[in-house]
Parts: sequence; C-alpha cells; structure tokens
Amino acid sequence: MSQPTATDRDATVQPAAFDATVEAEPLQTVLDAAAVLVDECIVRPEPDEFRIVATDPATVGIVDATVDAAAFERYETSGARLGVDLTRLAAVVGMADGDDLVGLSLDPERRRLEVRVGDLVYALALVDPDAVRSLPDVVDFSEHFVARVQLDGGMLSRGVDAAVMVSNHVEIGVEKADGDGENGGSDAVRTLRLRAEGDTDSVDFGVDEGDCGVFEVDAGAEARSLFSLSYLSEMNRVVPSGRPVTVRLGEQETPMDLAFDVADGEGRVTFALAPRISRG
Amino acid sequence: MSQPTATDRDATVQPAAFDATVEAEPLQTVLDAAAVLVDECIVRPEPDEFRIVATDPATVGIVDATVDAAAFERYETSGARLGVDLTRLAAVVGMADGDDLVGLSLDPERRRLEVRVGDLVYALALVDPDAVRSLPDVVDFSEHFVARVQLDGGMLSRGVDAAVMVSNHVEIGVEKADGDGENGGSDAVRTLRLRAEGDTDSVDFGVDEGDCGVFEVDAGAEARSLFSLSYLSEMNRVVPSGRPVTVRLGEQETPMDLAFDVADGEGRVTFALAPRISRG
Amino acid sequence: MSQPTATDRDATVQPAAFDATVEAEPLQTVLDAAAVLVDECIVRPEPDEFRIVATDPATVGIVDATVDAAAFERYETSGARLGVDLTRLAAVVGMADGDDLVGLSLDPERRRLEVRVGDLVYALALVDPDAVRSLPDVVDFSEHFVARVQLDGGMLSRGVDAAVMVSNHVEIGVEKADGDGENGGSDAVRTLRLRAEGDTDSVDFGVDEGDCGVFEVDAGAEARSLFSLSYLSEMNRVVPSGRPVTVRLGEQETPMDLAFDVADGEGRVTFALAPRISRG
Repeated sequence: MSQPTATDRDATVQPAAFDATVEAEPLQTVLDAAAVLVDECIVRPEPDEFRIVATDPATVGIVDATVDAAAFERYETSGARLGVDLTRLAAVVGMADGDDLVGLSLDPERRRLEVRVGDLVYALALVDPDAVRSLPDVVDFSEHFVARVQLDGGMLSRGVDAAVMVSNHVEIGVEKADGDGENGGSDAVRTLRLRAEGDTDSVDFGVDEGDCGVFEVDAGAEARSLFSLSYLSEMNRVVPSGRPVTVRLGEQETPMDLAFDVADGEGRVTFALAPRISRG
Repeated sequence: MSQPTATDRDATVQPAAFDATVEAEPLQTVLDAAAVLVDECIVRPEPDEFRIVATDPATVGIVDATVDAAAFERYETSGARLGVDLTRLAAVVGMADGDDLVGLSLDPERRRLEVRVGDLVYALALVDPDAVRSLPDVVDFSEHFVARVQLDGGMLSRGVDAAVMVSNHVEIGVEKADGDGENGGSDAVRTLRLRAEGDTDSVDFGVDEGDCGVFEVDAGAEARSLFSLSYLSEMNRVVPSGRPVTVRLGEQETPMDLAFDVADGEGRVTFALAPRISRG
Repeated sequence: MSQPTATDRDATVQPAAFDATVEAEPLQTVLDAAAVLVDECIVRPEPDEFRIVATDPATVGIVDATVDAAAFERYETSGARLGVDLTRLAAVVGMADGDDLVGLSLDPERRRLEVRVGDLVYALALVDPDAVRSLPDVVDFSEHFVARVQLDGGMLSRGVDAAVMVSNHVEIGVEKADGDGENGGSDAVRTLRLRAEGDTDSVDFGVDEGDCGVFEVDAGAEARSLFSLSYLSEMNRVVPSGRPVTVRLGEQETPMDLAFDVADGEGRVTFALAPRISRG
C-alpha cells in the first residue's frame, strides 16, 4: 500500500485495489448525477463510500455523489483513484435492471475497470486521472447557508420546468408570503419561491412551509439569488419525483445546493450551483 | 361592464373579468383540438361556456371547442375576449396531471392570463385579439348534412391512418353495402366508407351500421365527398380512442364535421372540414 | 393449376390462389424478421406453411421465416408466389393488435394482395417476383455445425448489445471455461462465449452450459468464428426476450445460425450469418 507520503499519482501506479458489487440502481443514480456536469471524472472508492466529486469546465456547478460502502454486497478498496469515461460506464451499468447486481473491479496492470452485469464482463479502459480536470479548491459553503427547505422532488421540478419556458435564469429565495408590512410578523407564512421573468411571460412558483418537510431559516436572514437555468434544469432531470429533495440557500449572490438521497438513504447526491451575477 | 353597443375592441380595454378553475383534462383537450388548426386564437369565456372557435389560414378547417361553465369548479366571466398564444398556454396546462385543478384568471391591466397549476403561477402575455386572424363568416352547414354516423374513435382512426399510407386525400361517404341493384332495398346494410387510392395501393375502410352507435341517413340521400388527409389526420390525432365520435356528411362536395364529447359530456369539440374539389 | 413442368413465372400468370386468416402476432414476427435483411421479398404460401426466404444484397445473411398452415384460421393456397414490398405490408399488418385477425387474399387479376384488418381492406400492389433478387443457391450448412446451444433470447441480446458498444464485429464460440490445461477434461464447464475487442474497451460475454436449455457440442470439436455486428445486432432486435433462441456454430470461419419459434411453436425464424474473415 502507498505510504502516507505518496502522492495521488503514485497511488494509481501502486497496486491499488478495488473490487465491489452493488445493485445497479444506486450506482446508476450516482453516475447520472455526475454526468450532468462532466464526461470524464475521478471515481474515489474510499473505505466508507464510493464517491464521485466533479465540476464542469466553467466551475459553475459541483456534484458530490456517494453510495455508502454499507450499501454494497461486496466492497474492497485500497488506494484506488480511477479516471473514468462516464458516458461509457453509465451505458454499461444502464444495461442492468435496477435490482440486478453490478460488479466493479480494478485490473491495475491493464488499467481497466471490469464491469460485470450478469454473464457480461465489460472491460472499461481507464483514463489517466491526471488528465481529468481536477477540482478547484472547493470552499465549504455550509456556513453561508441561511435557509434549508425540504420538498418533494416533483414539486421542485415543476417550478424549474416552468421557469425554463420563459427565461434562462431564475431567482430562488425564501420569503414571507404575506408581505413585509402589516402581517410580516413571526406568524406570517414563509414560502420557497422561484421567479423567472421572460420577455413576455413570467413564472412565479411558491411552496408554503406547510407543504415542505423541513423549513428552516435563520432569524432575520434573507435568502435570494439568481441561478442559471441551463445548469439547474439539467440537475433537475436527476432529482427523483415523489421523494424529498433539500434546497439550501444563502444570502444574496451566494451559491445554493440541492441534495437528495440515493436508494434508501444509503448514498447521497449533492449539487452546488454558483449564482449568476444579477442584472441591473 | 361594456354596453351592448361597445365594440369587441372596447371589451378588451374595459375592465373585462375572467376567473376560473377546472380540471386539467377537459381544458387540455380543448386546447389540443384548437392547436390542430392555429397557433394563436381568441378564447371567449362566455357566460355558459369556455369556448374557442378558430380556422386555419386557408380556412379549410374550423374548430369549435367548448367546456361548459358547469364543468368548472369556479367560473366568473364578464366581457373577456382573450388573444392567446395557444402553444405556450397548452404547454403550461400540459404540466398538470389530468385531474389536477388549473386556475385561469385575467389580469386586465397587465393584459396577462394567469395560469395556476399547483404552486405554480404562469403569467401568459396576451396577444392583441385584433391581431389574431378573425373567423370568416361561418356558414351553418347543419341543413346540408344528410347523414350522421356515430362510431368508436379508434375505429375511425384506423381508417384514417391507413388512408394516409397511400394518398393525401380520402373519399368519405355513406353507402348501401350490397350495391344499388338487386339488393339495394331498405334492408340492405348501410356502411360508412372511407376510400383512398394511391399510385399503387388502395385503402377501403367500411363500418357497417350495426357496428355504429347511430346511423341516420336522409331518405334517398347520397353522401360522398373528397377530403384532405393532411387536415383530417391532424384532427384524427385528438379524436379519443374507445369513445364515440360523430361524423356528419352532406351531399357531394359539401363539408363534413367530426364531433366528440370532452370529458364526461361537459364540453364538446367539433371540427368542420371543407371538401377538396374531386379530381377528374 | 400449373403443371409440374410450369416455371415459377407461369405460376404467377396462372390463376394462382391464396386466401388466409391468421392472428397478427406471428405474421408480424415473420415480416419483421424478413425486414432485417430486405425491403422486398418473395412470399411463398406453400401447402403446409407460409414462408419467406430472403438474403441481403451482399448475401451475408439469410432469413428463413415460416408460420405453419395449422396456425391459420383459414389457409388456402395454390401456386402463389408473391413479390411483396415488405415495408408497406409490415406497416399495414402492424396496425392490428397482436391477437387481431389479419386476412390476406390474392387478387390475381389486379396483382394485388388484399390485407384485411378489422373493417379495413388495404390493397397492396404486388411487385413482379422476377424483379426481386432471387436467392443464391443456398448451401445447407447443417452438417458443418458442431455446436448447438439454446439460451434465453434476452441473455443473448445483452451480449450482442454490449459488443456493439466496442466494436463492429464479434467472435462467437463454444469453449471449456476452465482452460485447456489442468482442468480441461470432460467435467470442465462449457460456455457459449462472445468476445469483442475495441480500441480501448472490450467485452467478454459467457453463458455457462448450466444456464442453457440445450448445450450440445460434437466430441473434440472447436467452434469459433468472427461475425459482423451490423448484421447480428439487427437480427438481435427481433429475437424475443424471455423465450429460448438456438445458436448453432461450426468450425472456424463457418456460418452460424440463430433460430427461434414464432408464437407458440407454430412457426419458426432462422437467420444464417456468414462469418467475417478474421483479422491477422
């Protein structure tokens, strides 16, 4: 095994090991989520989780997608860091039905990932991980978030789909529905709101806190930023309908994130999305 | 409210009002039917029914589509005449599931129609109704019809779909199946017949009266005309399979019409189609 | 009826007869199978079976597809040999649901095949059978086959679909899974194997004899040849999933064939596929 002083590069040359078996569905979700932002990525089979972290070339979005080691039927890993053509891997894993088992094992000498689906073994040539765009220094935005709202994925999708009809960006925020004046006290209804303004039409989507599973806002905080719909609508395509998704928002012009569980909570996809600088 | 002497133009400037709530399905049917012929149309929320009447640029087809006021959960209207981009309105209403409630309300000052689907409000900019092609003087053909046949929408669709395979026009008529000679008496079987002749292949589709819900022909009358399949096949796409559709035909070279109920009879779509001048 | 000395050409000029009724599903299967290789074909309604035999222009593949006369509700034939535009016939028969009855009858004077689906009669102009590419002298390869393996159609499809991802040809053979050396005796597990090598990725698909319904290999024989995936993947599209398909293989560089039952065994589709000359 590589010494603690070994660089990541050494880790791929060293006899890294990875051998795992898991149901197809959580793996497909994680791969589809990563494919929203990148064609190639680094897969990191860490001791406690199978993880993909990736960002698009413009670094507007970041995806962090994991399946817990506990969700695997078999999970053995040691020092592996795999450069993967996501399109091809997703196509092979996509041949399995959702509850079929999929096997993944690293052939370090031939630099291939063997993907097993039933009687099929697909040997996927790995990409040099150093040729894959590395993550920029990811700032942890957790402390910037002032609001956390959990709602049904299908509800959020309807708002995003409608916003796409009229514009290429959308304002997302949390507000008190009854205005700031007479009724804006502590008993006013709070609402997660998406607003998009097109040249002629506009969209206003608001989910009251009573229809949300979680609705937490820091006292006195305001959350409202403008986001690119070209990114958000792609992220929206992998958000599961009928299952909860959590949106976290910050003060003006801070990123948002969007998170949902994989399978039965044995994994998680989190998208972070940088704000657009608002117009005007 | 506008005086009886007010022109239609005044009606849209006056504080016209429209506020209504209805299940998505009948509204979608009416919008889809209108979209067969036009991209923009005038919507007339009359006191007793929500109605769209429109004709294509060549005035070959006319659609008259209504949902009764009684089918609405809420229906308040006064002097409204709305110029609507049908494509955009149909897309928004199409986001609702069939039994979701859809709200429509006119914002007369901003000249917008607010469409509510769940937590979503889509503000649709209205088109100047005077810029929408107005209906030509519509002649009432009722007195010209000599035959009225009701059959399952899916049966009619099969005939139209087959005719499209061989030609761009189809002859539709009612005839006595056993010929005019020896057996053409009152006990001969009558048939609704579609015939299309292609360069090499031909289609002959005949539904006997015993397979039709209604089969009425004026004594001694003949009904047979030639129609454009480019129009009829588009109309055919919104005809419901498994539910009755009524075809009315006139003497040679008169229009036909095609009518079916919306939802549970709380509305109706009627297409009228002018005949082609027959060849030869 | 034509004398035994009459040529085939005479048979189409003579008052040949064909009148038959059958459920749509077996007929659709046979037409879809033939359409894998040709656009036009000769249909031969023989006394005991309705049969299409055809080969593609390059004569790489041959299809032999039949429905037994016993599967028909009505089957009367005499000397008919029909040149058929397969695309058009398949489109008409495809309008029927699987268990709808489809009628076929030859109108020899007008050289048309009347296709009846419910209330629809589609008159399909026949092609001069002498203008349809005739079959080359077909060699019977039965004696060349050394292996016969029956497996689920869906399993085979997965192997073919994966091979297409990496290459345009695939090696198919039967082998002993435990190698030729220490364990290659009579108790070694035998496997049907598909292998495809791409520029970077490779596919290895192996079904053990225990997962096959039939697994017969001539003693001491080797079966392994290279086949074009452009042909095999098209054939694969009509192979039924969830039902058995039989693969027969010969020694190196001999054809393979692929056969499956139509409906409940009342017909059969057999594809023969010539090998590619292997590289290197």
